[in-house]
Amino acid sequence: MQIYGDEYFMRLALQEAQKAAEAGEVPIGAVIASGEKLLARCHNSTELLNDVTAHAEILAITAASQYLGSKYLMDCTLYVSLEPCIMCAGALRWSQISRVVFATPDDKAGFMRYGKELLHPRTQLEMGIMMEESALLLKSFFAARRK
Amino acid sequence: MQIYGDEYFMRLALQEAQKAAEAGEVPIGAVIASGEKLLARCHNSTELLNDVTAHAEILAITAASQYLGSKYLMDCTLYVSLEPCIMCAGALRWSQISRVVFATPDDKAGFMRYGKELLHPRTQLEMGIMMEESALLLKSFFAARRK
Repeated sequence: MQIYGDEYFMRLALQEAQKAAEAGEVPIGAVIASGEKLLARCHNSTELLNDVTAHAEILAITAASQYLGSKYLMDCTLYVSLEPCIMCAGALRWSQISRVVFATPDDKAGFMRYGKELLHPRTQLEMGIMMEESALLLKSFFAARRK
Repeated sequence: MQIYGDEYFMRLALQEAQKAAEAGEVPIGAVIASGEKLLARCHNSTELLNDVTAHAEILAITAASQYLGSKYLMDCTLYVSLEPCIMCAGALRWSQISRVVFATPDDKAGFMRYGKELLHPRTQLEMGIMMEESALLLKSFFAARRK
């Protein structure tokens, strides 16, 4: 059994998303891992930082690069609770990250409507891990907001 | 005669690009203005910050948002010496910026191969202002690198 596998890291990403929700941010969380090592865990902070670029993925890329002392994230995997947007897909491409795993698709703002080729040709892509948990978190957040 | 017009602000963006070149960065500069007021002037700092997300445009969006205390950049124009990449176009979309002006097209990594619709529907787009100066700066930088 793999302890530090995809489910483990995606669960951390969902914990980050939960922290975002508690802070009044749209609940999206991202972590970057290399092998069994956690390099970055971040959540969407656009409200706190007053900055549209402060998506979980962008913050995680910056943090992982600082940790590694490298702007390239070869041998790293990004786990994110929602399908990345165009901005984040572009950032992931520049980082040449090895693997991207997302939980829930985002039909409205996700990058996949332009296809996987928005990512780097060497980046592997997986989706659907813990999809329901992430979708539920987003749904509850927006339902509470509309009250 | 308009003193603080498009040429004035694009000249500042080119000065930023020049600063980037002197620091060993790919020479791209961006400024954000609102009316005659300069809100941000930044240059590509991916090497200095060891961070693929540190493009001139991303830094300028963050800086202008801090200045305004708002994550939306309505009534603002971004001037950038090179056509923005996909990541930066995505960030500009989230910012709902009023206008984007770029100098030189980037056939390799520019967002326009996906079309203007990558930007916000309300964002005006202009290109070609001081195109030659910006292209020359990039050409000299890469020619010197290959020596």
